[in-house]
This record gives sequence, structure tokens and C-alpha cells, in this order.
Amino acid sequence: MFTVYGDKRSGNCYKIQLTCALLDLNYDWIDVDIMHGESQSAAFKQLSPAAKIPIVKFADGRVLSESNAICNFLAYDSPLYPVDKFTQAAIQQWQFYEQYSHEPNIAVARFIKLYQGLPDNRQAEYENKVVGSYKALEVMEKALQQMPFFAGENLTTADISLFAYTHKADEGGISLADFPNVEAWIERVQSSPNFVTMDY
Amino acid sequence: MFTVYGDKRSGNCYKIQLTCALLDLNYDWIDVDIMHGESQSAAFKQLSPAAKIPIVKFADGRVLSESNAICNFLAYDSPLYPVDKFTQAAIQQWQFYEQYSHEPNIAVARFIKLYQGLPDNRQAEYENKVVGSYKALEVMEKALQQMPFFAGENLTTADISLFAYTHKADEGGISLADFPNVEAWIERVQSSPNFVTMDY
Ligand SMILES: N[C@@H](CCC(=O)N[C@@H](CS)C(=O)NCC(=O)O)C(=O)O
Ligand SMILES: N[C@@H](CCC(=O)N[C@@H](CS)C(=O)NCC(=O)O)C(=O)O
Repeated sequence: MFTVYGDKRSGNCYKIQLTCALLDLNYDWIDVDIMHGESQSAAFKQLSPAAKIPIVKFADGRVLSESNAICNFLAYDSPLYPVDKFTQAAIQQWQFYEQYSHEPNIAVARFIKLYQGLPDNRQAEYENKVVGSYKALEVMEKALQQMPFFAGENLTTADISLFAYTHKADEGGISLADFPNVEAWIERVQSSPNFVTMDY
Repeated sequence: MFTVYGDKRSGNCYKIQLTCALLDLNYDWIDVDIMHGESQSAAFKQLSPAAKIPIVKFADGRVLSESNAICNFLAYDSPLYPVDKFTQAAIQQWQFYEQYSHEPNIAVARFIKLYQGLPDNRQAEYENKVVGSYKALEVMEKALQQMPFFAGENLTTADISLFAYTHKADEGGISLADFPNVEAWIERVQSSPNFVTMDY
């Protein structure tokens, strides 16, 4: 058993929920309310070096942070993260892409619009994030012309990582209408056995 | 044998050079001049989904992108990326940290200052990057109070990923003077057998 510290509104935390559901893993959940600064408390910073959720704490006291690293650890040697060197590299490639070129646009656009109500002083930044979001979606659209999932024929943690914020892009004012392969992939992910929705 | 497409001024590309040197791997190198748009050419975009360097092309035609994914692949099952589930997770944790909270600050501050000469229209952005850079260094400083390398007792690809831009932080106007553990870690990395410097 292990404990997940997270906030249900966060796509990065939903990645862990989805991985656990698909693998049928049990866990405890502790809510950390990021809107009320709970991730910045001294106690939480002891657990999480970057003062960010999600983190996972194991029974032996060890702690892991960074959503994608956690998913790969939990899924190690399962079909979601198979022990094949090149498959793991392909998964990681798309997860680093997600953290560098995708999440900072699509998730931040959503945060500014949905949770901050698009304030004037973040309008210019929001517009940059929209441009970056569509660029990220184009890269995904092109990759999905060649294969049903990001690491090839099967669903892996790369799909979980990219799915989290992509399927909520509309909450950030980003439309998927021009990305038919992305839309079809979202449906493929949603129809996986044991799939759970992101509820908040 | 494999071919690395890169630019010697890029820390993300230096990660590959350093990994190959430490592992004593031979490779071909093709220069892609990002300052003259070579990463945005149609031919290069065929190889690299995100139109970014570095990428690696293998003899069988397969291509990998994302610097940290490439390092882990090349180092798979070596002391730099051992086949231990939790060690791999700890390495990945720090590499995702690097891509999300470190590189977008420290590398971008360097780019704006060193290569763009700190133009007026990027001054405010630069100042934000400086704040973010010091925050990232504080997290590193605290982690290195507890262990000599980021994944524990030994040098791994996590150190290579974080070393690349940290040891050039001064070129972005970021001083390491208040981070003695980071400075000592830099010396530890530099004294590894087969270490190569970043030359450009
Ligand atoms: N790279 C991290 C990003 C995590 C992240 O940005 N978490 C946000 C919520 S989605 C957070 O904790 N924000 C609160 C804070 O920074 O204090 C990951 O993938 O886990
Ligand atoms: N997340 C990528 C980032 C790579 C990256 O930002 N590459 C830069 C050079 S350091 C680049 O190719 N820039 C040129 C461009 O975007 O056209 C990685 O780690 O490999």
C-alpha cells in the first residue's frame, strides 16, 4: 500500500489515479489543497523537494515526486511500462515532451482560464499558451497518424501522461476540433478496461 | 553506431556527448545550426516530431528525441542507469524536475543573455527566469545536503541532465556562490573518469 498526496483538480494527480485504476492498485489518498497554499507548507515541503503535488509515499517511508516518474514506477513491468529498452525510451520521449512542450501550455492555459478566470494581467501570457497548445497538439496529431498510441500498438504510461490535460483542453479554451486523430485517441484511451474519469 | 543531430552550444545536446564519453560510446555527429533555423527545416521535421535537437538516429532507422530519454536509453543497464526499479524512478524524478522547473529557467536565462544579448523586449521575462533559476538551485542544494549525487551514492543520468545547464548558469547571469553543495557536486561530476567539457 502507498499514499498519494494530491488535488483532484490537477491533471498531474489524475495521471496517478488513472494508472492505479488501469493496474487495479489500491492506495490511500490525502488531499492537498493547492489553491489554499497547502503545497507550500513547511510540513509538505519536507516530503516534496519541489513543493509540488503529486507525490507518493510508500510503506517503507520512501517518497517519489514528479507525476510521470511515479506512473512509470507503479507500472514497471506491466503492459503500461514494459521491460523493453526501446519501448521505455519511446514512452519517456513522449513524457518529456509532455512536461516540456505540452503541459506548460495546455495545463497552464486551463489554470489561468478555469481557476483564475482569465485576469487582465495574465491575458498576454494566456494567449502565448494558446499558441503553444495548438503547436503541441499538431505534433501529437502527426504522431497519431502513424500509430494508435504514442509508444506504438498499445496503451502505455506515455498515453496516460498526455491524456491528462489533453482531454481537458477545452477548459482552457483550446478546441480539439481540428485534430481528428487526437480525438479518436482520446476515445481509445477512454474505452480501456478499468478507465476512470477525472472528477472534481 | 548511431548519429547524433545537435548543436554544440546546446546543453541538451551536451548531455548526449557527456553520456557517450562516460560510457565510451562511438557516434557520428551532424551539426544542426539552430540559430539559422536548421531545426525548423522540412527535412529535419521529418526526423524530429517537435522540431528540436538533440535527436539520435540508429543504424536500423529508428529515431529518438528528448535529451533525457536518449541518455537513459544509451545508458540502459550501465551504472549510469542501472536496472533497479526504484533507482530508475529516482533518476526520472530528477530528470522531469530538470525539464519542468530547471531548464526552462536556467537554460532560457542563458539563451536570452548569452545568445540574444538581453534585448529590451525580453528583460521582464529574463528577470522571471532568474527568480525561477534560484528557486531551482535551492531545491538542488537541499537534495545534495543528503546525498552526493541526485539518485544516491553514484553518478547517474540524473546528474548528467542537471549538470548540463547548471555548470553554465553563470553565462545566464546566475551565480552559484550561495550554493556550496551544488558547487561541490559540479566538481564531483567533473572529476568522473572520461569526463568531457562542453566546448563551443
Ligand atoms: N512536473 C510536476 C508538476 C507538478 C505541478 O505543477 N503540480 C502543481 C499542481 S498541477 C502544484 O503542485 N502546484 C502548486 C504549487 O506549485 O504550489 C509533475 O509532473 O508532477
Ligand atoms: N525537451 C527537449 C528540449 C530541446 C530543446 O529545447 N532544444 C533546443 C536547443 S537547446 C532547440 O532545438 N531549439 C531550436 C528550435 O526550437 O527550433 C530536450 O530535452 O531534448
